[in-house]
Amino acid sequence: MIPEKLRHRLHTIIHEADTPSGKAFDLILLALIVISIIAVMLESVVSIRLEYGNILSVVEWIITIFFTLEYIGRLLSVRSPLKYACSFYGIIDLLATLPGYIDLFFPGWHFLLALRAIRLLRIFRILKLVHFVGAGNLLIVSLRKSRAKILVFVFTVLVLCIILGTIMYMVEGPESGFTNIPVSIYWTIVTLTTVGFGDITPVTPLGQFISSIIMIMGYGIIAVPTGIVTSEFIARKSPDTNTQSCPDCSTNDHKDGANFCYHCGKNLHK
Amino acid sequence: MIPEKLRHRLHTIIHEADTPSGKAFDLILLALIVISIIAVMLESVVSIRLEYGNILSVVEWIITIFFTLEYIGRLLSVRSPLKYACSFYGIIDLLATLPGYIDLFFPGWHFLLALRAIRLLRIFRILKLVHFVGAGNLLIVSLRKSRAKILVFVFTVLVLCIILGTIMYMVEGPESGFTNIPVSIYWTIVTLTTVGFGDITPVTPLGQFISSIIMIMGYGIIAVPTGIVTSEFIARKSPDTNTQSCPDCSTNDHKDGANFCYHCGKNLHK
Amino acid sequence: MIPEKLRHRLHTIIHEADTPSGKAFDLILLALIVISIIAVMLESVVSIRLEYGNILSVVEWIITIFFTLEYIGRLLSVRSPLKYACSFYGIIDLLATLPGYIDLFFPGWHFLLALRAIRLLRIFRILKLVHFVGAGNLLIVSLRKSRAKILVFVFTVLVLCIILGTIMYMVEGPESGFTNIPVSIYWTIVTLTTVGFGDITPVTPLGQFISSIIMIMGYGIIAVPTGIVTSEFIARKSPDTNTQSCPDCSTNDHKDGANFCYHCGKNLHK
Amino acid sequence: MIPEKLRHRLHTIIHEADTPSGKAFDLILLALIVISIIAVMLESVVSIRLEYGNILSVVEWIITIFFTLEYIGRLLSVRSPLKYACSFYGIIDLLATLPGYIDLFFPGWHFLLALRAIRLLRIFRILKLVHFVGAGNLLIVSLRKSRAKILVFVFTVLVLCIILGTIMYMVEGPESGFTNIPVSIYWTIVTLTTVGFGDITPVTPLGQFISSIIMIMGYGIIAVPTGIVTSEFIARKSPDTNTQSCPDCSTNDHKDGANFCYHCGKNLHK
Repeated sequence: MIPEKLRHRLHTIIHEADTPSGKAFDLILLALIVISIIAVMLESVVSIRLEYGNILSVVEWIITIFFTLEYIGRLLSVRSPLKYACSFYGIIDLLATLPGYIDLFFPGWHFLLALRAIRLLRIFRILKLVHFVGAGNLLIVSLRKSRAKILVFVFTVLVLCIILGTIMYMVEGPESGFTNIPVSIYWTIVTLTTVGFGDITPVTPLGQFISSIIMIMGYGIIAVPTGIVTSEFIARKSPDTNTQSCPDCSTNDHKDGANFCYHCGKNLHK
Repeated sequence: MIPEKLRHRLHTIIHEADTPSGKAFDLILLALIVISIIAVMLESVVSIRLEYGNILSVVEWIITIFFTLEYIGRLLSVRSPLKYACSFYGIIDLLATLPGYIDLFFPGWHFLLALRAIRLLRIFRILKLVHFVGAGNLLIVSLRKSRAKILVFVFTVLVLCIILGTIMYMVEGPESGFTNIPVSIYWTIVTLTTVGFGDITPVTPLGQFISSIIMIMGYGIIAVPTGIVTSEFIARKSPDTNTQSCPDCSTNDHKDGANFCYHCGKNLHK
Repeated sequence: MIPEKLRHRLHTIIHEADTPSGKAFDLILLALIVISIIAVMLESVVSIRLEYGNILSVVEWIITIFFTLEYIGRLLSVRSPLKYACSFYGIIDLLATLPGYIDLFFPGWHFLLALRAIRLLRIFRILKLVHFVGAGNLLIVSLRKSRAKILVFVFTVLVLCIILGTIMYMVEGPESGFTNIPVSIYWTIVTLTTVGFGDITPVTPLGQFISSIIMIMGYGIIAVPTGIVTSEFIARKSPDTNTQSCPDCSTNDHKDGANFCYHCGKNLHK
Repeated sequence: MIPEKLRHRLHTIIHEADTPSGKAFDLILLALIVISIIAVMLESVVSIRLEYGNILSVVEWIITIFFTLEYIGRLLSVRSPLKYACSFYGIIDLLATLPGYIDLFFPGWHFLLALRAIRLLRIFRILKLVHFVGAGNLLIVSLRKSRAKILVFVFTVLVLCIILGTIMYMVEGPESGFTNIPVSIYWTIVTLTTVGFGDITPVTPLGQFISSIIMIMGYGIIAVPTGIVTSEFIARKSPDTNTQSCPDCSTNDHKDGANFCYHCGKNLHK
């Protein structure tokens, strides 16, 4: 479709962050995202919209067009456009552009442009600071490793909320603001997570007693996800194993300072 | 009572989760529980009850009858029905059925059908994922091990709440919403657990000062259950080294499953 | 004053918890404390006071007289009454008795009888369960060890609250509910500890922006006391050192399984 | 400018905390800071200002003049006044003096005198308690070490708040109190950090459903900063073993300061 040389040039600018032109492009992109988000936010404020609505609208359209061109550029500059379009970043990039056009048909939906904020996470890639990338990876790996435990925990908490919410509905009833079971479950989640809006509060002594139990449970239960993640972080931190790989049997989680493979006895230093 | 062969067949379907028929049965059960809970929830919403009340009622009755048959099936298919009926799961299964009938005498009690949600926890057994079962067991074992510490902690916190609640009652008095000591204790629990509904708030300067102390205490005290559970999780996690000692060089912190000494290469099993 | 034999008898009953009579006495004491606290609580509820006020008053007086006799008994049964009267438990025991009499001169102060709740902590001594005593000690030792860190932390947080509270007072002003600086500091503590009553809330955009920063700070800062206590718990848990003491140089924190003193080289097993 | 001898004398009094005169000076300073902060607080209370405004004003002016003299003294007593003026403490000391004068031109700004509270942190320097200094340093080092991780975390949370806040604005709309996107983001932060003021609350079922997800996320996410700080604290705590290896038996996990191998008794220093 387009000459190979141009594609290569586009790729250097858009997809790479190490070259000067690539870095400049990424910085402009970040600046535009920030401006765009601020424009969307300001537009939602009635008094500002009435006075500067036109300017903000123009700014949004310019940035949307720029993002559209960038998206097309990304599609053209990669070898397999379809693969990019279906990748995580490809979908994010599309979602950051579409809402601007949707607004033509469904007014109000352009607020979804705030989804562009996800693209801000690129900042860590641009900064290319070993610290930040390492920190981000550690967080992700730790959370992924504790996924099963967290899922079991969240599911159990949800079952608890359904039961406690129903009991609170039966105890307090609609006259205290617990109008139905879904609302009661919402209230239980508000209480168990120690958020406590106070839009709905128990009025009867029995309701207050059960609430006290829910609150103390929520206060104690928070220890569980904390414990899960902390123990995972600590496990990730102790670099007790090194990166040696046995030349014979390829076992590769040897202790630091090991001379022989613990699996086959082969000398690791030869 | 019933032929041994039929009982065996029933047992395979109802109690086992490994066979195809058992798995199918469990999945149907889960689906019915979810439908039943949604029906109960929707029925509690006034506008939905007025319009679809009859349908929801029929759905609930069908599921209640199915659960009744299932409970009878479980009783018939085990060797000692009494033992099952008194077991934890037996009681849960009964509680998941009874509220449907209680409603005939005490209208409104059928909301207790939400107790069926407990049965949803079976999902981990059906999924039979090692990860999830292991995660669940780890959580349970850790919580059980820290039971004594958590009980001491909760009891001390309760004593604290009684004393602080009484002091707040004397400082603020009924005119600020602290109508009596039980309500003041409820307020203290709301505050100490950092829930903070705001339905009752201190008004006098002294009351606000004491509240500040309660809040800072609550903010710090949460560290205790977290510390208890986290240290338990970490203790559960680290059986990575075994107790073998090398017969040659006496190095003794080998990895679990090691065959050879990592220091001198000696075979550890000889 | 009183015969030695009677004193010894009294001491066995009142101060010891191992003998049958001592245990019975402690259990009666606990029961009376619980009844007394419930009586005080119920009396504070207006509707109950109007109907059963007289009965509750009589119950409180009987228990107060019993506690007075018990306090005199404790004084008489120990060798140095003054030392007991000035000890922690002696003061608690006095405070659990006095409010009953103060009420004769200052009505309303008898609610302080709720201070008797502190005596409930004796339950752990009576149960004499190794688990609970150990758990309690671990909690106390860990908290005492991290006292310095927690004090530094709380003091820094308080300084932060003073400064942020003053800034919020200047930004929001009395018309938003931040009537003066002490109230603003109270609000800052409410917000930083994530309690969030909602009795006072920021109204101006700048105030809401600063509030957001305070909230995120409070959300992150909670990690500090948790980290302090957790690391202390873990340090308490790893019994990596044994109880051997070197016969030569008395060094006593040897590793588990050590054969020789790491300080002087002496064989520890001889 | 001033004689060297006088400068040395000034330096001893103002900058050192070990000499008796220096310690006395520091204690007077702390007392004045506390009095000054209390005066500022009291002045903000309308009823007190009306009655004692004059006295408080005089107290503030006396302390401001003392602080001015102290600042000049600090400038004169150091070798390079400019370096001190630009240092962290130099700026704090200036900020603790200026607001008193600004008030002459902009009434109301003297409340910034509360910034003097920062100077209270000197108390740890005066106390010179090894425990406290060590505790403070440990906290600072741990927080500095986990800076990168905490930044990544806070940034990710902020991006999340922007997106969720926009979605809540679109779902709930101005009629439920979500007047614009900045306010919705403020609400999301209030909810995610589990503060939950309750000044704005979701009203629609969909809004309450999304809120529930935000709350459960916030309840779980708090585990991340806690895990980061705790693992850092633990890493800081355990330098109990050194890297020595016994020349005879190669045991290598000796305690710090060990002279002899705990396994074979060999002198480790030879």
